Amino acid sequence: MEDEIKIIELKQNVFKENEVNADIIRKECKDAKQLMINVMSSPGSGKTTTLVRTIKDLEGFASVGVMECDIDADVDAYTIREAGARSIQLHTGGMCHMDAGMTKQGMLEMGTDGLDLIFIENVGNLVCPAEFDTGASVNLTILSVPEGDDKPAKYPLVYEVSDIVLVNKIDAMSVFDFDKDLCVSRIKELNPNAKIFFVSSKTGEGFEEWISYLKSILEDYKTQD
Amino acid sequence: MEDEIKIIELKQNVFKENEVNADIIRKECKDAKQLMINVMSSPGSGKTTTLVRTIKDLEGFASVGVMECDIDADVDAYTIREAGARSIQLHTGGMCHMDAGMTKQGMLEMGTDGLDLIFIENVGNLVCPAEFDTGASVNLTILSVPEGDDKPAKYPLVYEVSDIVLVNKIDAMSVFDFDKDLCVSRIKELNPNAKIFFVSSKTGEGFEEWISYLKSILEDYKTQD
Repeated sequence: MEDEIKIIELKQNVFKENEVNADIIRKECKDAKQLMINVMSSPGSGKTTTLVRTIKDLEGFASVGVMECDIDADVDAYTIREAGARSIQLHTGGMCHMDAGMTKQGMLEMGTDGLDLIFIENVGNLVCPAEFDTGASVNLTILSVPEGDDKPAKYPLVYEVSDIVLVNKIDAMSVFDFDKDLCVSRIKELNPNAKIFFVSSKTGEGFEEWISYLKSILEDYKTQD
Repeated sequence: MEDEIKIIELKQNVFKENEVNADIIRKECKDAKQLMINVMSSPGSGKTTTLVRTIKDLEGFASVGVMECDIDADVDAYTIREAGARSIQLHTGGMCHMDAGMTKQGMLEMGTDGLDLIFIENVGNLVCPAEFDTGASVNLTILSVPEGDDKPAKYPLVYEVSDIVLVNKIDAMSVFDFDKDLCVSRIKELNPNAKIFFVSSKTGEGFEEWISYLKSILEDYKTQD
């Protein structure tokens, strides 16, 4: 009988430790009644523009903080602050995702006192951020129309772990061959419970429904035991 | 004057520590006269098939070991062993790249005694593996014709850090709109010193040149001080 190939499981401890740290963050956020939402997408899908409009639409309803995570840029953090949110820029230094330890460091450095809602704008990448639990209570993925309706089929994990999907840039729908129904069925196949909203962060189309839903989960989160 | 946004540099220590560990591995390999080549590519570009043909073509010239790195599969390690190389399967457990610590663990578990050449078949991903120094002395990227001649423009870093690029599946050139010259100029723009070979791991076309070059760098490596 042929010998079996030796299989070595690397880094299992890294993932286990990350899960423990993520659970601690979720517990702390729950106690402080601060909802944390982890925003994932490809580069260029409109994460920052979507957050800017969301922050403005929540004015007077919720105090928002944003941790902008990027390999090395810092323009987005200024844009976010101009929209009225507290913000901090986290440089991952080449790391392709946020983990729970990085989230905790960002929360401590930004300061979370008085915030109702904290967004993590994760590194622009559909693979690695989906693998690592950040400690956020809600995962949100933005898919933009020009990327194509087949993205859920190509990057299943990020859709499997996402509670909310915003399909952005619907104002460009007419110039792209984007099948809304097919996109929805592909997402629902991976994750039947995903809430899907079609929006344009540029024109504001679809934001009423998205903001209304966001307000409802914020209120539910605040009043839960 | 508006306050500056706070910028936090995360994980700098992780990258610094990795570089130190990578340098130690390179020194150890040099002392042992064992050349280590880190093989990167997208999934499906033909890493394993290319390694199988390369191992067979080196029979009698060099003793080869391969560390197969994958999220959770183990089929490739058996294929590699059948081709005549020592092999081990490393499961990264969701980690999207190999780092120097993982390489070292793999080397210890596989055993490197008597080997002349060690390949790391890195995780199939063009982004993250390029960010982390594995400790290999040579980086090699495989680009397959069906992926398109624009990959170097889309994933510049992996080409910047690669000493060798194998353009694979050239037997399929006639059915794809792949511009060889454009591809070469895109790679050379990012990395003027990259050695580029056009091969087909299926038919063996172009392997004579690639294997001859590989033998020459193996001999140079063995005879260097």
